[in-house]
Amino acid sequence: MRARDEHAAKHGPLRERLRVKPGSEVSLGHFDPSETYGREREPAELELAEGLVRLGELQDRLWAEARHAVLVILQGIDAAGKDGTIRHVMSAFNPMGCPVTSFKVPTDEERGHDYLWRVHRRTPAKGEIGIFNRSHYEDVLVVRVHELVPRETWSRRYDQINAWERTLVEEGTTIVKFFLAIDQDEQRQRLRDRVEDPTKRWKFRRADLDERALWDSYRRAFEDALGRCSTDWAPWYLVPSNRKWFRNLAVADILADVIDDLAPAYPPGEPGIEGLSIT
Amino acid sequence: MRARDEHAAKHGPLRERLRVKPGSEVSLGHFDPSETYGREREPAELELAEGLVRLGELQDRLWAEARHAVLVILQGIDAAGKDGTIRHVMSAFNPMGCPVTSFKVPTDEERGHDYLWRVHRRTPAKGEIGIFNRSHYEDVLVVRVHELVPRETWSRRYDQINAWERTLVEEGTTIVKFFLAIDQDEQRQRLRDRVEDPTKRWKFRRADLDERALWDSYRRAFEDALGRCSTDWAPWYLVPSNRKWFRNLAVADILADVIDDLAPAYPPGEPGIEGLSIT
Repeated sequence: MRARDEHAAKHGPLRERLRVKPGSEVSLGHFDPSETYGREREPAELELAEGLVRLGELQDRLWAEARHAVLVILQGIDAAGKDGTIRHVMSAFNPMGCPVTSFKVPTDEERGHDYLWRVHRRTPAKGEIGIFNRSHYEDVLVVRVHELVPRETWSRRYDQINAWERTLVEEGTTIVKFFLAIDQDEQRQRLRDRVEDPTKRWKFRRADLDERALWDSYRRAFEDALGRCSTDWAPWYLVPSNRKWFRNLAVADILADVIDDLAPAYPPGEPGIEGLSIT
Repeated sequence: MRARDEHAAKHGPLRERLRVKPGSEVSLGHFDPSETYGREREPAELELAEGLVRLGELQDRLWAEARHAVLVILQGIDAAGKDGTIRHVMSAFNPMGCPVTSFKVPTDEERGHDYLWRVHRRTPAKGEIGIFNRSHYEDVLVVRVHELVPRETWSRRYDQINAWERTLVEEGTTIVKFFLAIDQDEQRQRLRDRVEDPTKRWKFRRADLDERALWDSYRRAFEDALGRCSTDWAPWYLVPSNRKWFRNLAVADILADVIDDLAPAYPPGEPGIEGLSIT
């Protein structure tokens, strides 16, 4: 506990600062995605390195104990850094206990079911830290923006999602939702980088520009998802993500604090094996 | 190509040394699990660190290209180091493209199907490196040792496995099978460590000692699996694993050489996007 308190005193509790208050109205127009809360890049990178070690240790105990599941949800507009966050933060974890699911356009089979079906079957088991790269939130984001279902349908989903997430939490899953926020200038720069860099070009589709043109519609959909689905049991964290180093630090720091609160402990082992002689 | 040649000249091609020749008789009694082929621990750890970077770069291209699947199979007796290999070597990979499946005692549903059913549904997709922590080989190992099926049944399985793996390979999956070999003294020490170390005690079951008592039966089952199922299309690598640092180095080195041979390359991206202006 003391180490965490020192950490918070020194750096400020990012978990509190970035959490979207349940019931609040979110306005991304008044949010600065370049904010770094006084942090500087170089010390932050050192702090991240320490944070990753801490995450690895926490996961080891979480896995051994197999009492809590942790579900991490990553959302954000194209190029906001969902993949990069997985690469740079989630690589702290032993891949054995860290299944990652990237949700794409639903398959025919998935479309034959309700929108929670495909995500529910990929939620983590106890001991696991499951990463969702996109999630059921697409069903109130891309689906809403492109009017793939009527307003009447998507507008019901906020409550449905809250109820479903609540059940997961009550049954032993901890849910941590990160919204990675960048602005239009930053997205332009990142899409340009993709086009120019031969090692990134494969990530770029012309259709990305059509999506970019819908920026304002996405912004409104994000604001509603963040405001209506940040709950006491499954809060959203709104992460300023123009600076990749700050984004990584914030995600690692919040995630470690959340897992630390679960106080995962190595289980005692079978009764009476202590001192057992093995020949 | 030059870098790999230099590497091989300097260190000796572990891939050749450790590969089980197809059609050979394997005798684990004449195999030294402490062998390190002249390597020393300290330089090996540096070499491993470089190898992990190389693996990460190779995976990035493999994932981008999405043309080849890679299936890594880990087998070995209890405490041989399957989990440790995943933690120390597979952590080189972005977890997004590296699903790990640990096969346990089959569930009721799994038992309702043939023994290849549950492994087949977990084979990696193109672009992925899938790790099997145990595998269908348990169906000619633990199943044989404990006589869970008649000899007639398990003895057919070597050919079935070879045929199934051949289909996977012909359809675009590269299969790399590592058998982690330790001796009885090393297992004793590791089981003792588990009992004595409170952070490892949860891994130990009294039943592990019953398995240990079946050492010779397991040895014979291993020898047959290695000898009969090391094929031109899906070779076994027999890795001396008493020294964890050598085991990690060997697995990383062989895996990198195998993926390198696939020559994964970043795909060109959509035609005509080079120089596209993004506003």
